[in-house]
Amino acid sequence: MGSVVCTLVAFAAVVLTTAQAQVNFTQAWSDVPFQTFPGGEYKSSSAMTFPGSTSMSAALFKLVAGGVRDAHWHNVDEWAYVINGTCRATVLEQGKLRGVDTWDYFEGDIWFFPANTAHTVVALADGCYFLTGYNNASFTEERDAFGLSDWLALTPQRIMAQALGLNTSAVPANLSSRTSHDGFLTRLAAPPANSLDAYRASTLLQPPQQAAQVHRFPLAHGNAPEVNNGGGYINLADSSTFPAATTMMGALVKFEAGGLRQLHWHTTLSEWQFIINGTFEGAVFTRAGVAQDFTLGPGDAGFAPRGSAHWLRNTGDTDAYMILMFDGGVFTNEDVGGLIGVLPASIVASSLNVTQGFVASINPRLESMVPMASGNLKQA
Amino acid sequence: MGSVVCTLVAFAAVVLTTAQAQVNFTQAWSDVPFQTFPGGEYKSSSAMTFPGSTSMSAALFKLVAGGVRDAHWHNVDEWAYVINGTCRATVLEQGKLRGVDTWDYFEGDIWFFPANTAHTVVALADGCYFLTGYNNASFTEERDAFGLSDWLALTPQRIMAQALGLNTSAVPANLSSRTSHDGFLTRLAAPPANSLDAYRASTLLQPPQQAAQVHRFPLAHGNAPEVNNGGGYINLADSSTFPAATTMMGALVKFEAGGLRQLHWHTTLSEWQFIINGTFEGAVFTRAGVAQDFTLGPGDAGFAPRGSAHWLRNTGDTDAYMILMFDGGVFTNEDVGGLIGVLPASIVASSLNVTQGFVASINPRLESMVPMASGNLKQA
Amino acid sequence: MGSVVCTLVAFAAVVLTTAQAQVNFTQAWSDVPFQTFPGGEYKSSSAMTFPGSTSMSAALFKLVAGGVRDAHWHNVDEWAYVINGTCRATVLEQGKLRGVDTWDYFEGDIWFFPANTAHTVVALADGCYFLTGYNNASFTEERDAFGLSDWLALTPQRIMAQALGLNTSAVPANLSSRTSHDGFLTRLAAPPANSLDAYRASTLLQPPQQAAQVHRFPLAHGNAPEVNNGGGYINLADSSTFPAATTMMGALVKFEAGGLRQLHWHTTLSEWQFIINGTFEGAVFTRAGVAQDFTLGPGDAGFAPRGSAHWLRNTGDTDAYMILMFDGGVFTNEDVGGLIGVLPASIVASSLNVTQGFVASINPRLESMVPMASGNLKQA
Repeated sequence: MGSVVCTLVAFAAVVLTTAQAQVNFTQAWSDVPFQTFPGGEYKSSSAMTFPGSTSMSAALFKLVAGGVRDAHWHNVDEWAYVINGTCRATVLEQGKLRGVDTWDYFEGDIWFFPANTAHTVVALADGCYFLTGYNNASFTEERDAFGLSDWLALTPQRIMAQALGLNTSAVPANLSSRTSHDGFLTRLAAPPANSLDAYRASTLLQPPQQAAQVHRFPLAHGNAPEVNNGGGYINLADSSTFPAATTMMGALVKFEAGGLRQLHWHTTLSEWQFIINGTFEGAVFTRAGVAQDFTLGPGDAGFAPRGSAHWLRNTGDTDAYMILMFDGGVFTNEDVGGLIGVLPASIVASSLNVTQGFVASINPRLESMVPMASGNLKQA
Repeated sequence: MGSVVCTLVAFAAVVLTTAQAQVNFTQAWSDVPFQTFPGGEYKSSSAMTFPGSTSMSAALFKLVAGGVRDAHWHNVDEWAYVINGTCRATVLEQGKLRGVDTWDYFEGDIWFFPANTAHTVVALADGCYFLTGYNNASFTEERDAFGLSDWLALTPQRIMAQALGLNTSAVPANLSSRTSHDGFLTRLAAPPANSLDAYRASTLLQPPQQAAQVHRFPLAHGNAPEVNNGGGYINLADSSTFPAATTMMGALVKFEAGGLRQLHWHTTLSEWQFIINGTFEGAVFTRAGVAQDFTLGPGDAGFAPRGSAHWLRNTGDTDAYMILMFDGGVFTNEDVGGLIGVLPASIVASSLNVTQGFVASINPRLESMVPMASGNLKQA
Repeated sequence: MGSVVCTLVAFAAVVLTTAQAQVNFTQAWSDVPFQTFPGGEYKSSSAMTFPGSTSMSAALFKLVAGGVRDAHWHNVDEWAYVINGTCRATVLEQGKLRGVDTWDYFEGDIWFFPANTAHTVVALADGCYFLTGYNNASFTEERDAFGLSDWLALTPQRIMAQALGLNTSAVPANLSSRTSHDGFLTRLAAPPANSLDAYRASTLLQPPQQAAQVHRFPLAHGNAPEVNNGGGYINLADSSTFPAATTMMGALVKFEAGGLRQLHWHTTLSEWQFIINGTFEGAVFTRAGVAQDFTLGPGDAGFAPRGSAHWLRNTGDTDAYMILMFDGGVFTNEDVGGLIGVLPASIVASSLNVTQGFVASINPRLESMVPMASGNLKQA
């Protein structure tokens, strides 16, 4: 789903081009089918399919038991959230004395892998389901990642022999000879055993040193939410709590029925939204006279460019959850109450075209999640 | 005014395209009429109207008494110089525990507001007249700023009620319902009283903390000029003297009659020039065989791209003043004398195609402002 | 020379456009003739002639005795390697209290000059031959550098008089009046004397202070190679050994006959390759299903974009040398052995489509230079 209404109010001094009016900050991503591979399913969202997202892209992976996302790397950073199941992921830190960091990522865990560090993911059982975000609008894993299997399939047999320290005759003629498609998500004969230590030890070499950083953070369990009230919660980790993630960050947001993510903007961040469940209404205000009102359902995506004012609201009767991804590592947030509350009342009245009496009736102390009945919560 | 002559000298190895030859580093901005709003007048200069300015844009505001530039923010930094009158400006620092910084800015004061921090300006009396600069070539306030009035006008009544903690019926149907044009520069029934303290206190909330930085710097009064001689002065503030301004800086430059801003370039900065009064000649040298000679009058604008060699000279009989804005926070400057003076004389002679005797007659110690009679000042 | 074969393997999910398939990461630069000037010869390589090089450009200079590259500066950084002869280069540090740094650069020395710092080069004898690299794809010295001679030739006589502290009548009408072409590489009547101290002292002024940094590093002689074995050596200097070079770095690489630069990628760097002597084969792997196989001879150039996997191999019977230039100041490198060695063997087997027995036969300990007979070197 995902429907769109554009609200246009004329500004005498500005001629809105059609292109400006048609920017769409949502994608009905739930309508996009998954692609199927030996090791599971995958779909991507990038500027090609979601042109309104001008600084980030994303993907969804659902691995079957023993499904492997081939060891690969890419020119963009990757932030991920495990929606379901258990995913065992390994990342090689860069540098001569790099460490190797392998963990089991459970539901609600996040990872961050810097650009061009090699990583791989394997599912211990059916249903390792995760969302990835990238800090580049046009990136897709299927086109732009450098994969080990693809790479070596394209390398001559005699060069592989010299590179691996083998006789040429010992190198299979069909090294990595499956298609790129099948190599993207391969499948082991059996998933790895549960023991993380055994898995870490099943290598030809031991890493030169311990990993310098932990690339896993248990976001959904054990982290203190930023806000937690009758409207819902905002549970986020930026580089102050998850130091490995210096250039991207994210949040799990719970909306109670009717709960509103307060009107706000981010001074330094663009925001990519993924709906886990429920139905939402929202809007993005991008320039004088131009805002987009929209609705989003499970599996849909939205985007709010840096600086743009926006809000989201759960229109359903039950709790609904959303994942937010941001293209920076330090959280910034400006809510409408914090702005209206500290401006002189005369200036606010002029801006809102209201009396100073009306300004005095505003509650500027509401938190970033606003319960449906906020009107009743107003302080005397 | 603003007339242009392009000097082209052929370089055998280069074919100059028409596009290269036609770059115009000046804008006859004085010919552009101001737009009129309830709260005053405004005009902008951006890549659309001044394509030669490839990394900065600018605007002029003239507010009437009680005129208000609506609370707003934008994805670019803003540096401003008050040319005339008194402007009361407020900026909200970003961050959860942000401070709010309100000052009266007098003639010769400058401010710096970082990207996407909300700010508003009100005129205490007729004639608050200021120049703003932005570190982006295509930015204009009327199209690209996010304004509080515009934002809330586009937000549904029931959402505003939840956001402000009110009953829906209490929210005026016509909240911010003036046009975007009228909301851009509104006008209070009466200007604020002179007391800055009373203005700062007339808010619903007090800011969570003191402002971390002072966003005002008294450039024209009390700051020690970089250079001050019979040619004029260069009075500048970069981040070493005005720490709030990390990414832009500026200067007030006085030219005595016939005074020359020495031939120079900036290793790290592009320069945007605004003529306050007087008439100037100048040139920008941008590549082998290509320089633009020009004249500029009051209200006109010029631009010198990073690295390009340029000079400016007062062709009138009285003192003339210019505002310079730069797209970086640290000042760098290379004058021709400093270059010629420290190169071996044989190398200089070869470059200038002159004798070493001529090189010996050069005065390499002239300061950045050169009096008309510099020839008489030469040291023995 | 420089021949190209593109290997394409279809990936079901991707439609390769012709443009993607045709990217050429080599330039038969040896086929490009030098241009001739009074002071020597020159040729450039930029995006116009080598479109596959997307973040760097380069040039070759061969100066005759007394040949001078006119004092100039440019908006990009410059890293250079002296291939032959002795070049005396001077750079002015930026800043009010700048130093001036003049050295004789011998074969195997490198320099680094930051963007827009003025510099000049003179040949003490015939054959000062050096390669320059720039961290911008489209830059060329002949079009984009700001030269002292060109600059002053375009400046009016009366302005020059005021700028240099002379009477107008004392300024030659033909100041710098040679053509841009001839001013690019001029020639002194006689080369400077050998004494560096005398050359440094032959200026109108003494620099305000000592140079803050040494811009010269003796790369080829006295620096400890990163790797040095029967395959060859990699002799590099990044900002940890050559602190003046913060944004570019480079290496001299020796390949013994049949020696292989191991399959690898750089997480943070693109690489520009120049062949000094010998013949090479190599490949660049850029995306799923796309690699370019190529051969390179003396004077040819290659490029490997950031993140792309690549290798190079000496196909001749004798030692061959290559200069590498990178668009960053900190070295990063990931070899295939370091990746395969620390991944669980089951994951490697799945990626390579081989048995775990084959994986166990791999030697993951080979260094970055691999001798032809690496198969015999495998550890038990």
